Amino acid sequence: MDLGRLQPVWKLWIEKDGEYVFGAGTFKLLRAVQTTGSIAKSAESLGMSYRYAWGLIRNVEARLGTRVVETHRGGSTTGGLTGGGGARVTEAGIALMELYARVSEAFEKAMDNLS
Amino acid sequence: MDLGRLQPVWKLWIEKDGEYVFGAGTFKLLRAVQTTGSIAKSAESLGMSYRYAWGLIRNVEARLGTRVVETHRGGSTTGGLTGGGGARVTEAGIALMELYARVSEAFEKAMDNLS
Repeated sequence: MDLGRLQPVWKLWIEKDGEYVFGAGTFKLLRAVQTTGSIAKSAESLGMSYRYAWGLIRNVEARLGTRVVETHRGGSTTGGLTGGGGARVTEAGIALMELYARVSEAFEKAMDNLS
Repeated sequence: MDLGRLQPVWKLWIEKDGEYVFGAGTFKLLRAVQTTGSIAKSAESLGMSYRYAWGLIRNVEARLGTRVVETHRGGSTTGGLTGGGGARVTEAGIALMELYARVSEAFEKAMDNLS
């Protein structure tokens, strides 16, 4: 058998009390919020609607029971015309991102060591 | 935030040319075939019907393009009354199992090292 055409594939997510909370999509979204300081710009950069991006964030927050993104009006030069104001990832959001990134990087390293 | 209630969860599978081939369920099934030498006994031990177990195996074989289980009539003391005869995992099946197990063990070790 041609093993070279076989590829191990993995998916990682974070659960709280056995329920899905956070995964690859929300990781990318929060990382974009850290970079752009704006939900609107983050949504645009990931090819999703502003409404959809907020839905993802609200789902994480509902499951987690705490805010992962805080928004403020004005005072930001990065806010877009739609959904203005700025946004930043909270400490709880950063903790989720760090946990996800730590495991993800460990898995990537493990895969590299195998091949 | 109570990080202790957050649990990283992962799923691993094997793809061939970008298409799903083999995962946790088929790994357990082939391992049971190695242990019992019988599809019927393997299916029973995993709480699935004989027909369902064969369906899983046939799906893997169709996607892989080669047999992962070989059966023979008689000559076996492990064959059940239904679906008689014996079954054994082929070299291709063993190669799939080994690839899955290698990555799975590396991930488990990586998770242990993190916590």
